Amino acid sequence: MSAGWLAIAGLGPGDEALVTPEVSDALAQATDVIGYIPYVARVAPRDGLALHASDNRVELDRATLALELAARGRRVVVVSSGDPGVFAMAAAVFEALEAGDASWRELDIRVLPGITAMLAAAARAGAPLGHDFCAINLSDNLKPRSVVERRVALAAEADFAIAFYNPRSRARPDGLGRVFDVLREVCGDARPVLFARAVTTPEESLRIVALPDARGEMADMRTMVIVGSSRTRVIERVGAPILYTPRWMPEGTP
Amino acid sequence: MSAGWLAIAGLGPGDEALVTPEVSDALAQATDVIGYIPYVARVAPRDGLALHASDNRVELDRATLALELAARGRRVVVVSSGDPGVFAMAAAVFEALEAGDASWRELDIRVLPGITAMLAAAARAGAPLGHDFCAINLSDNLKPRSVVERRVALAAEADFAIAFYNPRSRARPDGLGRVFDVLREVCGDARPVLFARAVTTPEESLRIVALPDARGEMADMRTMVIVGSSRTRVIERVGAPILYTPRWMPEGTP
Repeated sequence: MSAGWLAIAGLGPGDEALVTPEVSDALAQATDVIGYIPYVARVAPRDGLALHASDNRVELDRATLALELAARGRRVVVVSSGDPGVFAMAAAVFEALEAGDASWRELDIRVLPGITAMLAAAARAGAPLGHDFCAINLSDNLKPRSVVERRVALAAEADFAIAFYNPRSRARPDGLGRVFDVLREVCGDARPVLFARAVTTPEESLRIVALPDARGEMADMRTMVIVGSSRTRVIERVGAPILYTPRWMPEGTP
Repeated sequence: MSAGWLAIAGLGPGDEALVTPEVSDALAQATDVIGYIPYVARVAPRDGLALHASDNRVELDRATLALELAARGRRVVVVSSGDPGVFAMAAAVFEALEAGDASWRELDIRVLPGITAMLAAAARAGAPLGHDFCAINLSDNLKPRSVVERRVALAAEADFAIAFYNPRSRARPDGLGRVFDVLREVCGDARPVLFARAVTTPEESLRIVALPDARGEMADMRTMVIVGSSRTRVIERVGAPILYTPRWMPEGTP
């Protein structure tokens, strides 16, 4: 085995105070940092560090480059925002690993977790994911829309709180609106919806609306959408309300 | 509003390199730290810091104490392992807040996210949560067992990867075994199961078995169990295998 290694690291939602020391240490030891342009821009340049920034939708090229560099003995960090294992680069690297050169399987590869967007958004609003929940990626270039809508309906039937990643983009502006339609059909009106945009950054904004009032246009590419379960509650107070889901369910719940 | 504040902070899964700087800063400014005994034991004692450690299953007492101290002007940190918003103290504090003194709603309360156990476990194994997934708490003292089993069946039908928190305890030794039975019934044999014990600590151990071979006795109170989706793959290699779920689904998936 060469002295090279590959770390797939999560930078968290944006605030540098949410980057773990483990990730900071890996970046301090790296010879190469690879990732999507805005994430690589969060890494301070220094002598001896090569920054490889690339555009969106080239995840497999990025993963292959990372494996090749590590195999040549470089110390490589692939950066994702949030957590690299949640709709991010870790799976892409393992896809490339499985399809690629057999010798890559001997590489020293680690995944370094980070604060994923849904947990940062939940923390800013209270604790909407305090009971059972699920996470669904609405990026339908990776998944047929029928699968998305079926999953959403089953998740609502199971009464999960639901966190939606990548809720909206220019290529599919109406997907989120369709999801809200499905949710209104399956679970009625009683659920609160959180739109949490750019959490922990200077552009952060939070908005809570009732499900009947939720519209796709309330989200953009930087928004995390969390739909409460039937048990999720809103505590009104001076300033922002608190959104939370109790830990328990009453006896006699069907 | 008094100068007191309340932070509900996540200490991550165990390794101090996974505690965020935001949480370390809050602990450095605190006058009081409140939590379950083993979590408070992770906080270094110092002059001017009162440590309030209590046993399990008194979450609401702990939450009430935290709110009372903050209302008296103290700087209070409630500590959870992992992330405080995932089956942990944040929801308990908001339950106490909602039921308690109206003046508490004026307090400065923040939730400081942490690396939750399922993401730490996933990172150590690869990326089993790389596609849609859900998190289910098997602690059935908070939830009727019928709800648990119905949710598990719906989650399997939706083809989520599933992370199980609190999979097993002395009070309910057979719950996890029943869950595996439900999963075998709904989704057949093809899924890998990860048992990740005490991740990021010196006692860490990982084990991957096929669903037909999964037994409740393979988990204890310190284990996170992750059941893959139908798409989750195992990459064999020298040393530990890699478990991951690809980001995409083939066209024509029903």
